[in-house]
Amino acid sequence: MSSEFDIIRRYFTRPTHRAILGIGDDAALIPYTATADLAISTDTLVSDQHFFADTDPGKLGHKALAVNLSDMAAMGAIPRWVTLALTLPANLANRNSSWLEVFMDGFFTLASKYEVELIGGDTTCGPLNISVHIIGEVAKGKALKRSGAMPGDDIWLSGYLGNAALALAHLQQRITLKPDELTVCLAALDAPVARIELGQRLINLAHSAIDISDGLLADLGHILECSQVAATIHLGKIACSGVMQRYLPLSVAVDCLLAGGDDYELCFTAPVIKRSEIAQLSQELSIPLTRIGTISQGKGLFLLDVNDNTITHEKKGYDHFLT
Amino acid sequence: MSSEFDIIRRYFTRPTHRAILGIGDDAALIPYTATADLAISTDTLVSDQHFFADTDPGKLGHKALAVNLSDMAAMGAIPRWVTLALTLPANLANRNSSWLEVFMDGFFTLASKYEVELIGGDTTCGPLNISVHIIGEVAKGKALKRSGAMPGDDIWLSGYLGNAALALAHLQQRITLKPDELTVCLAALDAPVARIELGQRLINLAHSAIDISDGLLADLGHILECSQVAATIHLGKIACSGVMQRYLPLSVAVDCLLAGGDDYELCFTAPVIKRSEIAQLSQELSIPLTRIGTISQGKGLFLLDVNDNTITHEKKGYDHFLT
Repeated sequence: MSSEFDIIRRYFTRPTHRAILGIGDDAALIPYTATADLAISTDTLVSDQHFFADTDPGKLGHKALAVNLSDMAAMGAIPRWVTLALTLPANLANRNSSWLEVFMDGFFTLASKYEVELIGGDTTCGPLNISVHIIGEVAKGKALKRSGAMPGDDIWLSGYLGNAALALAHLQQRITLKPDELTVCLAALDAPVARIELGQRLINLAHSAIDISDGLLADLGHILECSQVAATIHLGKIACSGVMQRYLPLSVAVDCLLAGGDDYELCFTAPVIKRSEIAQLSQELSIPLTRIGTISQGKGLFLLDVNDNTITHEKKGYDHFLT
Repeated sequence: MSSEFDIIRRYFTRPTHRAILGIGDDAALIPYTATADLAISTDTLVSDQHFFADTDPGKLGHKALAVNLSDMAAMGAIPRWVTLALTLPANLANRNSSWLEVFMDGFFTLASKYEVELIGGDTTCGPLNISVHIIGEVAKGKALKRSGAMPGDDIWLSGYLGNAALALAHLQQRITLKPDELTVCLAALDAPVARIELGQRLINLAHSAIDISDGLLADLGHILECSQVAATIHLGKIACSGVMQRYLPLSVAVDCLLAGGDDYELCFTAPVIKRSEIAQLSQELSIPLTRIGTISQGKGLFLLDVNDNTITHEKKGYDHFLT
């Protein structure tokens, strides 16, 4: 079986001429005005892959947009317009079903918050499939790419990783959370918060950025590959939620922390000289921003335990075609 | 059961502010440069709804893009960039399967022809679902909308209608075509030609336009609704392919002609004064352009037979949630 990224490289990637940036980042870039580029991205949620078929439609409407907003955040872009390609089983489109109304309420509530306009789409009948396409504006030539990491850069993380994956592990009966822990973790899984404002504020501070949708190791790995650099990260420095702290170092929790998807936090790299500005930004936005490691020359992602011993972690992250 | 258009009106349509044109036309419009707007559209193909699961993947790759190019044609836009949200069953993404390679060959062959760049997408695992998002450029303020039809306008059609629907009727054993007829009709079904150049040349000639994806009556109906006008069309004036002529007036053929989807011809309205320019354009592009009726004040779509008697046609066109 091919991995998702093999597939992208082999079959989809061709040189572009009119676009500033094509396939391979959180969003593509095309020229827009004298002061802005357009960032363009698409993310699909598939029933039984990204969510359970009986997921509350309002939460699904929120999440379908949130995962796309997160791609804008990772580029430092201001989200502006979306289209929605929605394939629905006939029973959900039935007049007697409130599914669509509740789904769109969740979608529009989040869209209104960021003044994002739904300008088009396509509604078709078939197995549930939700594809959102998003267009945002980003300062000309300033978008945060995966390819900008430089040796010496600090590696930063926003918020806490792994709560969404802990909720999924609970639902899949791989771990048993207490009711109050489950509530916290389900909120992370169902209603992720895209780091829109943080992304925009990281322009001129960060050298590179990505959103954590497939897991820290996988997504940081994309930065390393695109930037052709290596990284060392300190497991003990990764900021953990209270719930995560309680379950570490259970291997299922370590998996959730390092390779759990669906967090939608930002991982970014920035020069050492920007540390105090980033710390100030963290305070201003009330978002934990934590330094977890360093970029270096070379190739590879090295993980150190609290005694600075190298450890290996086999599970790299979520892959649609390998998992 | 709600119709697709009820669903769009009820759940998706909200006022837009930053966009020039939101939901309800062949594409949305957003401001771009001093001389151009961007036209944005998305069209999804779902297995067993829009195509048979065993359809040749190369033809599917062509068609997934062609139906989106057709939306650009209907706006008079030059297609520039596309993204591809592709949900694939695991067996089609397998290294031993050539499905994806052949699909992308079909896609890129057509993309190259129009210099359209694939700049992004999302590849996920699940029931086959192909959603293409397209962005094009159109002369500022000049896009061909559904809402521009004026009383007195001629109603024009490009090419021949119904061949794609005849092929489908044959595959569904509702009609039996001869082998040579089937070849002609299958080409229309599998490899539709988007009227890209025609669309662009209709700017400053046509008042309104739409592409025929759901059937003439349904799609012309959208122009009438958006423009708040009525239309009279003459059944005998609709240009028919040789195959169609042989099967008329069988009711299944009349259905294909008036309510068959998948033709991707353009239906447009233009003032009488433009007749000679349009005739000249038809010659220049070697595309039949035929006047089939007239726009008038009021409401309704009136269909006249060769003796100018009003006839009724119950089947209006393809609807994902009613068919």
